[in-house]
Amino acid sequence: MIDLIARLPGLGPRSARRAALFLLKRPDALLQPLSDALGEAAAKIEACATCGNFDTLQPCAVCQASGRDESLLCVVEDVPDLWALERAGSFRGRYHVLGGVMSALDGVGPEDLNIGQLLQRVKTGRFGEVILALNATVDGQTTAHYVAEQLQGLDAKITRLAHGVPVGGELDHLDDGTLATALRARRAI
Amino acid sequence: MIDLIARLPGLGPRSARRAALFLLKRPDALLQPLSDALGEAAAKIEACATCGNFDTLQPCAVCQASGRDESLLCVVEDVPDLWALERAGSFRGRYHVLGGVMSALDGVGPEDLNIGQLLQRVKTGRFGEVILALNATVDGQTTAHYVAEQLQGLDAKITRLAHGVPVGGELDHLDDGTLATALRARRAI
Repeated sequence: MIDLIARLPGLGPRSARRAALFLLKRPDALLQPLSDALGEAAAKIEACATCGNFDTLQPCAVCQASGRDESLLCVVEDVPDLWALERAGSFRGRYHVLGGVMSALDGVGPEDLNIGQLLQRVKTGRFGEVILALNATVDGQTTAHYVAEQLQGLDAKITRLAHGVPVGGELDHLDDGTLATALRARRAI
Repeated sequence: MIDLIARLPGLGPRSARRAALFLLKRPDALLQPLSDALGEAAAKIEACATCGNFDTLQPCAVCQASGRDESLLCVVEDVPDLWALERAGSFRGRYHVLGGVMSALDGVGPEDLNIGQLLQRVKTGRFGEVILALNATVDGQTTAHYVAEQLQGLDAKITRLAHGVPVGGELDHLDDGTLATALRARRAI
């Protein structure tokens, strides 16, 4: 049990031992309920065959929801990014989860991501715009360029998130790259 | 001496006492050199009459520098923002320091800022573009709107920094406002 807990992100062998002891001291309040919850998750939650989101429904609740904009497809790296956009409540279209980003260091190539499935969706769907909402990291932007190239020639317009000063950001505390990007991409008032 | 040190930003009476004692124990290595440096700064450094930057030169080194783009004027809140942009090295025009932002809470109105001087510079200068590089805070944006209104009708184009995902930013760690802004201001690839 300790070995398995230690494999969770952010936990080492020492904190795993502490967590295990904490659980063992609370068999009814925590240990058994957590065991049940994990078992239920293993049995019921799976990746949506359409977008890649995790849900108990197949297709997932976001893919099933009516009243969303069918012409907008938002491509994200992973499920937490989809959840972040849903939390922000500012996007009302459909999603596609790539399941990661291309990374030479980690040996992740385009064939390891859900890019083929994305092309298929865009080809057969009626999306007017594909938004590449990938992280503003080197790997995220490399992947965005690759995906944009693959999507070229299809009918959908390809866009990416704006880069610049974050809300509440003070110039004095920003890194040079963000300042340069924000200056380069300045907009008329 | 302790009372004066305690008035510096980030220091309270307790840390001022510690700093004073630290100085008194090092009269030749720190106390006298610091006293000399402060005296020299008081005697030689002043705000540039043109842009508001601090320098020993009048006008300041940035205003005197040749080879900078005379058609670009970058308006910043305060001197640290000017320094941040110079550190980033991505802007090669002239600057104008407002000396703060409008704030109803702090009782700072437009008449407390160098806005009249800015209008005068834009009217008499040959700036093709005025970049309002104010912080992405509520007060910063209020001030930007006010300044933009005042500049309307003059020849110069008025722009602002791009807002969105900062360089290296991961969607999962961004606030809802930045995500919404980045989505709204998305760009074609």
